[in-house]
Amino acid sequence: MPSLFGRLMPRSQSFSTAFTSLAENTHEGSAVFVEMVEKYDGAEGYVNRIKEIEHAGDNMTHALLTHLNQTFITPFDREDIYMLAGRVDDVLDLIDAAARAFVTYRIARVRQGVVDLAKVLHQATGKVVAAVHVLGKQDHILDHCIEINRLENEGDRLSRKLIAELFDEEKDPVQIIKWKEIIETIETAVDKCEDVANVIETITLKNA
Amino acid sequence: MPSLFGRLMPRSQSFSTAFTSLAENTHEGSAVFVEMVEKYDGAEGYVNRIKEIEHAGDNMTHALLTHLNQTFITPFDREDIYMLAGRVDDVLDLIDAAARAFVTYRIARVRQGVVDLAKVLHQATGKVVAAVHVLGKQDHILDHCIEINRLENEGDRLSRKLIAELFDEEKDPVQIIKWKEIIETIETAVDKCEDVANVIETITLKNA
Amino acid sequence: MPSLFGRLMPRSQSFSTAFTSLAENTHEGSAVFVEMVEKYDGAEGYVNRIKEIEHAGDNMTHALLTHLNQTFITPFDREDIYMLAGRVDDVLDLIDAAARAFVTYRIARVRQGVVDLAKVLHQATGKVVAAVHVLGKQDHILDHCIEINRLENEGDRLSRKLIAELFDEEKDPVQIIKWKEIIETIETAVDKCEDVANVIETITLKNA
Repeated sequence: MPSLFGRLMPRSQSFSTAFTSLAENTHEGSAVFVEMVEKYDGAEGYVNRIKEIEHAGDNMTHALLTHLNQTFITPFDREDIYMLAGRVDDVLDLIDAAARAFVTYRIARVRQGVVDLAKVLHQATGKVVAAVHVLGKQDHILDHCIEINRLENEGDRLSRKLIAELFDEEKDPVQIIKWKEIIETIETAVDKCEDVANVIETITLKNA
Repeated sequence: MPSLFGRLMPRSQSFSTAFTSLAENTHEGSAVFVEMVEKYDGAEGYVNRIKEIEHAGDNMTHALLTHLNQTFITPFDREDIYMLAGRVDDVLDLIDAAARAFVTYRIARVRQGVVDLAKVLHQATGKVVAAVHVLGKQDHILDHCIEINRLENEGDRLSRKLIAELFDEEKDPVQIIKWKEIIETIETAVDKCEDVANVIETITLKNA
Repeated sequence: MPSLFGRLMPRSQSFSTAFTSLAENTHEGSAVFVEMVEKYDGAEGYVNRIKEIEHAGDNMTHALLTHLNQTFITPFDREDIYMLAGRVDDVLDLIDAAARAFVTYRIARVRQGVVDLAKVLHQATGKVVAAVHVLGKQDHILDHCIEINRLENEGDRLSRKLIAELFDEEKDPVQIIKWKEIIETIETAVDKCEDVANVIETITLKNA
């Protein structure tokens, strides 16, 4: 239990550290996912590792929000902290969902181009780490956000191409259903990185 | 039109009552849905009953938000009240969507396991009622939230199993499309109960 | 850079103008979409026009949010301005997604009834323009919101009918997958107009 003084003081430091850990955890999840689709051997082991990372993320988010609710003065607007934690968590949830779909759907081999899409996601989570790391410090933060937006466009373009190829090449409707969902889930994870960037941008502009 | 004095006073009572009614209405919707999939005879009658419950819920939500917008001092943060009403309403919308899909897709018989998933949803809405009922009173409220989280995990596990079985057993892609949507809609309704629990937890911690 | 005095003064005018432009831009997007599905000749040209409108919308939203973050006193609650801009942008994103699906899926001819659904969307975006135009002025604003709700119900009813017909008439599962997504995307765009109406209603009641 912190002293009253401790509870009233801005805790820029502790929130920044907590967000950096949260973002790094999500980035680790996307790294494991890239490895899974690249090697594609023993998907279940990778899925279990991502599941553990996701549980760790849940605990970090929970601790951060509990801290937030017990802190009187916060370095950034309370809603923005809440929103930022939620959006970083969303990315990891989608990585977990994408990975598990490979097991649920008993995917035998990974379609051409899906590894590239996973790599775009991994680049985006890397930029989320970079942006969160300098949160409130203004240094290059908007550059990171612009780069996340660029990666989101790249992910959008690539997933659209993969979906078009899927419908052109695949004749089995069941395979179409499976892969459409997997591709869209990865793409939505990249999208959510842009949502993170938008919250970071809002926090940065408010504190300018 | 309440007096100025009435408008300025905290209305903990009226908000609690309104939220309890809203949660009970959603719980009634899930009860009718369980009955529908268990008996599975005359789905349209059940769908109409759920539609009526959903309309009643819309009216309750509308009245609650109008009251909120006219109240100067609120017992909990305004955004949290707004959020809580919205999330409870989301659950009912999804129950309505799941029920209607059975009619739209002319479902002849209910797949194995779907009744169990509907029952998990019903247990979750029951816990939402219990949690909302003690809102602001702290008694056991976090226990209810933990139980909702447990039910969400249970719903997640069960729906994943049902989807895997669907793809393993069903050869007709059109049946896969229909059931995949129904199962996912029920599971999303359970998910949204967890969103309700998260808002309740936030309100509880803020007022601790 | 505005003077300190300028930054501190309420900017009802500039926010109203910005929102009207944003809503008109979305309405233009839905007009191009209706034309595209009505004529259905050279979908790619229409998709490119909608993409340009969407980019223009992104820039408008960005400028509005930057202005918001630099303005000390705002005519409406900051969160509501943020929310309203986001929701109007969501509608346009979905129009863009619906239009692009026709190209991705190499749709040869437009199914019966889809033009009607697009027209309901266009009516709804028209009412969004009307409501945003009188934002903060109270004149008939709730009438516009009620009309948007009516159109959302109409869109819901129509899309449900189209989906039922799709499953009854279409035997090719791949066509079902394609059209189900297109119809649902248009319907979600109409839904999002209702979300806009809900934010407008909240702003109006708060300022009553």
